[in-house]
Amino acid sequence: MSTKPNVFALKGNILYCKDKDTIISAENHYLLCIDGKVEGVFQTLPSGYSEIPVEDKGDSLIIPGLVDLHVHAPQYAFRGLGMDRELLDWLQTYAFPEEAKYADLEYAQKAYQIFADDLLAGATTRACVFATIHVDATILLMDILERTGIRAMVGKVNMDRNSPSYLCEGSASQSMADTKRWLDNIAGKYKNIAPILTPRYTPACSDSLMQELGALSVSENLPVQSHLSENDAEIAWVRELCPDTNSYAESYDRFSLLGNEQACIMAHCVHLSPDELELLRTRGTFIAHCPQSNTNLASGAAPVRQFLEMGLPVGLGTDVAGGYSLSMFRVMADAVAVSKLRWKLMDDAYKPLTIPEVFYLATKGGGKFFGNVGSFEKGYDFDAVVLDDANLPSPSELTPLERLERLIFLSDERNVKEKYIAGNRVK
Amino acid sequence: MSTKPNVFALKGNILYCKDKDTIISAENHYLLCIDGKVEGVFQTLPSGYSEIPVEDKGDSLIIPGLVDLHVHAPQYAFRGLGMDRELLDWLQTYAFPEEAKYADLEYAQKAYQIFADDLLAGATTRACVFATIHVDATILLMDILERTGIRAMVGKVNMDRNSPSYLCEGSASQSMADTKRWLDNIAGKYKNIAPILTPRYTPACSDSLMQELGALSVSENLPVQSHLSENDAEIAWVRELCPDTNSYAESYDRFSLLGNEQACIMAHCVHLSPDELELLRTRGTFIAHCPQSNTNLASGAAPVRQFLEMGLPVGLGTDVAGGYSLSMFRVMADAVAVSKLRWKLMDDAYKPLTIPEVFYLATKGGGKFFGNVGSFEKGYDFDAVVLDDANLPSPSELTPLERLERLIFLSDERNVKEKYIAGNRVK
Repeated sequence: MSTKPNVFALKGNILYCKDKDTIISAENHYLLCIDGKVEGVFQTLPSGYSEIPVEDKGDSLIIPGLVDLHVHAPQYAFRGLGMDRELLDWLQTYAFPEEAKYADLEYAQKAYQIFADDLLAGATTRACVFATIHVDATILLMDILERTGIRAMVGKVNMDRNSPSYLCEGSASQSMADTKRWLDNIAGKYKNIAPILTPRYTPACSDSLMQELGALSVSENLPVQSHLSENDAEIAWVRELCPDTNSYAESYDRFSLLGNEQACIMAHCVHLSPDELELLRTRGTFIAHCPQSNTNLASGAAPVRQFLEMGLPVGLGTDVAGGYSLSMFRVMADAVAVSKLRWKLMDDAYKPLTIPEVFYLATKGGGKFFGNVGSFEKGYDFDAVVLDDANLPSPSELTPLERLERLIFLSDERNVKEKYIAGNRVK
Repeated sequence: MSTKPNVFALKGNILYCKDKDTIISAENHYLLCIDGKVEGVFQTLPSGYSEIPVEDKGDSLIIPGLVDLHVHAPQYAFRGLGMDRELLDWLQTYAFPEEAKYADLEYAQKAYQIFADDLLAGATTRACVFATIHVDATILLMDILERTGIRAMVGKVNMDRNSPSYLCEGSASQSMADTKRWLDNIAGKYKNIAPILTPRYTPACSDSLMQELGALSVSENLPVQSHLSENDAEIAWVRELCPDTNSYAESYDRFSLLGNEQACIMAHCVHLSPDELELLRTRGTFIAHCPQSNTNLASGAAPVRQFLEMGLPVGLGTDVAGGYSLSMFRVMADAVAVSKLRWKLMDDAYKPLTIPEVFYLATKGGGKFFGNVGSFEKGYDFDAVVLDDANLPSPSELTPLERLERLIFLSDERNVKEKYIAGNRVK
């Protein structure tokens, strides 16, 4: 079948990263889209394209869509609340009781719609999302997200041990049966949404469950997301639970759940040992750095520069509702902030993160998990956000790079004027 | 002269602190104002007041206005930019060149109007403001702020040494002559704005200048604001510059500039010695804790709980543009965040700050510098902010306290629906 390609261009001040060291700024350039892919960034339209539709965004900034590698959709309902505890207490006191509510589809509809509306309003174009253990509510979340146009991987959560009775699947076989029912129900259903296997974390998943999930990941070609090395008490607990492994990372690895065969994201990675870091490097595991959450739950400050120097794949996550904000700009600001306090208060071996580095992490760094996503290099998915900063007046003329820097610290969803994902406008 | 008292009430969900441990929540209550002062918070209007005008704010929250104890108005122009350095480099590279621009009144008009507009839009009702060394631009800033209705203390800055030639008053006598010209020009001019003496910091002020400023403070009954113990290199420099004093704090104290006779605010106080803390306690010096700035400039994390346990007067400051945001809510959020990282990364002797504590600091804590300000106890100035959180939907019903907690982390100026200062509506 031959159809005419869908071609258009956005014109404006185009900013993106090829690597973590530099933000490329192409002022008053054209960003050319062919069939949902970036063709390139041009000062003048290339020959043969002079007649295509051009949307002139004037003095606006155009950046790649932002990628949230770790967010708990059901926890959005209590964002900004109950952050007076550390991880394990916080889960019992706030997160688990809230997640239990999603057995009720009416509640889930109300809460997930709020989440989806707010996710659409901001600059995020791709997300890796935790739902809950509930099959029906997870499918509902996927249905709701599908309609936004956002590209997301969504996981029904697995929990079969060390969880409150009201939020526990009881047995590995029950958890796997629900997982398969979930996957069967959504097979072929979505254009924008894909499933991702989601063992909550080692303490909540029995060996049998982990083993079956690992096998399912391999047989069904499914990616994996989970949590790793967030909090000291959690790490000590894993050591008790898994006496025959050398580390928390190994507790996933031994079941092929660390990116051994399928892509894998591990959130946090705050306190990894050198051996664990090497294991992650070998496996190609993605790290979702969640600085706001790691601060709110007093978990610590991950050595992100070390990850970068080792060449580990890293992106950023809001980790709502350990993080209180869905804004990936705010995560960028917090990543810089936490790296500065880490450097000053704890360990000056690793210099603070720079603006280009956090912008890279929020775009191309996390985008890699989705393929060629998060940049405006040729062949990348055309995910683009048009930013207007008219509400941030300045007495002096600012460069586009300076305006982007300011938006990282000061923007909110009002600054997100338009959003395109794989060539389709979604906002 | 006897005139009829100006009496009215606001009705809504009223939240305020009497002390740092508890936020009082009076749902659907009346906040009664008589001649610019709070008469009290009542479930039903007291007898004799049943006929007064009542503005029903419905389900809105009503809180005391927020107090910004430390903000540099001229630096607002570059908020969110240039935070890749530590203090001394940052001053030379960003702050000083920007401040030099205020020799030009046309630039000052443009920049200060943006600052004033944004300050008015947010929840801040009181502020202690640094201007620049320039007399005319400082008066212009005071004129502009006067029109907003915000109550502010504004200081022409003094700098006569160790400053770039383009931003240095050259001699103590020149600096004092300008200071007196400034004070003469504004004498009796303002209803809302008052002057505050503002030696920039010890490195930029000669002994002669400090001595004359101390004498002027005493003779003219003028409060003082400056910086103390922000950054390690700055502290080492003060040690070199003042070999005959025991500490940075003493470098002010020996000239009666630490609150000896007049009220004094010292910003930062990140690295004070036990002796300095005792000296501050003796003098009653106010500390302006500026967590966002101390993070952005990698200065460190002040031991705020220690200040509170010692009973030192403490409030919060944005320290724009070391801080990038004028929002005192964001300062509260950052105060909690920094205290958590301090506890986790550096020193677990002092527990992280709580929501009631940071709300207290931003209201009554800082408000004390202005008198009976920052609470709704009887006799306090009627500074009130009406907050609407309709843009933060929740699937569950939230209490007013939970809604306030969420606004601390997630609000912006859109949530500030109305603002009253000393009984007058200013927004």
